[in-house]
Amino acid sequence: MPAAGGEFGLIARHFTHRTSTGAWASQGVGDDCALIDLADRRLAVTSDMLLAGRHFFPDVDPESLGHKALAVNLSDLAAAGASPRAFFLAIALPAADEAWLTAFSRGLMALARAHGCALLGGDTTRTPSLREGPGPLTICITAMGELPAGAGLSRAGAAPGDEIWVSGELGDAAAGLKLALGEISADMADAATLRERLEWPQPRVALGEALRGVASAAMDVSDGLLGDLRHILERSGVGAELVWERIPLSPALRRQPLAVQRDCALAGGDDYELLFTAPPARRAALLAAGRAAKVPLAHIGQIGAAGLVLRDAAGAPIELAASGYDHFA
Amino acid sequence: MPAAGGEFGLIARHFTHRTSTGAWASQGVGDDCALIDLADRRLAVTSDMLLAGRHFFPDVDPESLGHKALAVNLSDLAAAGASPRAFFLAIALPAADEAWLTAFSRGLMALARAHGCALLGGDTTRTPSLREGPGPLTICITAMGELPAGAGLSRAGAAPGDEIWVSGELGDAAAGLKLALGEISADMADAATLRERLEWPQPRVALGEALRGVASAAMDVSDGLLGDLRHILERSGVGAELVWERIPLSPALRRQPLAVQRDCALAGGDDYELLFTAPPARRAALLAAGRAAKVPLAHIGQIGAAGLVLRDAAGAPIELAASGYDHFA
Repeated sequence: MPAAGGEFGLIARHFTHRTSTGAWASQGVGDDCALIDLADRRLAVTSDMLLAGRHFFPDVDPESLGHKALAVNLSDLAAAGASPRAFFLAIALPAADEAWLTAFSRGLMALARAHGCALLGGDTTRTPSLREGPGPLTICITAMGELPAGAGLSRAGAAPGDEIWVSGELGDAAAGLKLALGEISADMADAATLRERLEWPQPRVALGEALRGVASAAMDVSDGLLGDLRHILERSGVGAELVWERIPLSPALRRQPLAVQRDCALAGGDDYELLFTAPPARRAALLAAGRAAKVPLAHIGQIGAAGLVLRDAAGAPIELAASGYDHFA
Repeated sequence: MPAAGGEFGLIARHFTHRTSTGAWASQGVGDDCALIDLADRRLAVTSDMLLAGRHFFPDVDPESLGHKALAVNLSDLAAAGASPRAFFLAIALPAADEAWLTAFSRGLMALARAHGCALLGGDTTRTPSLREGPGPLTICITAMGELPAGAGLSRAGAAPGDEIWVSGELGDAAAGLKLALGEISADMADAATLRERLEWPQPRVALGEALRGVASAAMDVSDGLLGDLRHILERSGVGAELVWERIPLSPALRRQPLAVQRDCALAGGDDYELLFTAPPARRAALLAAGRAAKVPLAHIGQIGAAGLVLRDAAGAPIELAASGYDHFA
């Protein structure tokens, strides 16, 4: 689903202004999932495309790629509080490589089974031959989840006074990418931890389900904390103040220089943690949701009237140069 | 959705053997759409990926491409007898080209409006840079339609004695492709007709809806008559006999040499007509469905016990060398 500003702007300008046709009541483009209201239930649907050379390395372990291709979609369902039910896989392959497909499907189907999400259809094709060889491997997954009628989480709904929370730890996936690109270094154990977080993200499905009726707004952190938080602020018409020291970082990331920590935790993508808001009165319910889902939660700031400010623990503002990843920036 | 043998075989081997997880009752991979049974209705869902250089020319008119990208998905819904409701668009672009996007969205949204099918979400990304330039433009659409509970058409259900029918005319799109590739020639009027049929296919949505409860099996002709018919025969466990002279050809295609006519009408893809079967007793209802949908229907053969035979009007068999398009053959 569209997340970054330019990407969403592109879709919004060209495709959303004439979408009021159709017999299904729904929320339009711009959230992690589209919500479709049927008589007795609500469907959540999301679609993500992954391309070799842009979203993953062409030589990535195919088992982890199968896992991640579905994980990013389940993360969108989690951000809506939906329970995964089914998915559709379209894949364009440079060649019909049995060993590659066996490993890819092992990673894909293991995650599908773990979440009761059935593969119900798809499309397989061969990438066209370009002058320098076959076109890039391309994967498009559309996932469908289910919600009780009227239920679910969206990016709209955060109100001044709400607390801002995030699950797990942020920045590891971005640090794993920097490691893979040779931009940073780490000892072997840290390197393994960071690469694992990049290649095997765990969608927070149980947490999303438990946050229904608890969180006032939610989304998943796919493009970086600051850029993603801005979407909640825009959709909710509010501002926010974050405290750097409250942002949960792994020990492996803490062993990196401070500039790397900040770049990864604030602007790095691919963490697939849940970012959400809730009134202080719901804190007990929220912490119970985290315990039920076995995911640590951190209170990282507050919703205010306008703007976005990051402070250190002493209250001094930290400059926000980074703003998240934009596919067409 | 998978149509050709090898393509479907690839999916079936790697992805279908472990799909019994999930809380939704459904038919599995292998039909034009997956059918999902909810309490009060049935959903039909299909997903198709189109790549520049494989499914369309990189310099194709973007308005016709927008039309066709949705049309092929609506055609899958038509083959299930479903009413289009919503679709999701994932698109990977070499560049954010405003003029191209304006034309693409015009073609896409005009067809969406005509069928009451709302664009509810999607994903936009930039194709990765390869050594020789950007990767190919890639479009993935997932379309959702609706059926009454228990209703719908599938490829299974044809029985010996059933008549075989097809809508419209076959082979024009394949002839349009041969023209574009310089493999055949035609006068200007015929060339325009054939190219129009290639670039602006009309999904037979109203016919599919009208055939619910009338046809015993149905699919759309996307990969060629013979290859597609084989899917009905395999899924239904039956055979068929076709009569060449009964296969409906346009005047433009009839002006091509007989070998071109046969190649295009029997093995050419991209027509997006409906191919279906029905017992002779339902012929009146079937013809009424065609009139209601304003689509001509042709009775092109009979379902038998086994095998697939094409005969001429005098009853002599015609050799079937071609067998439809296989993406990995």
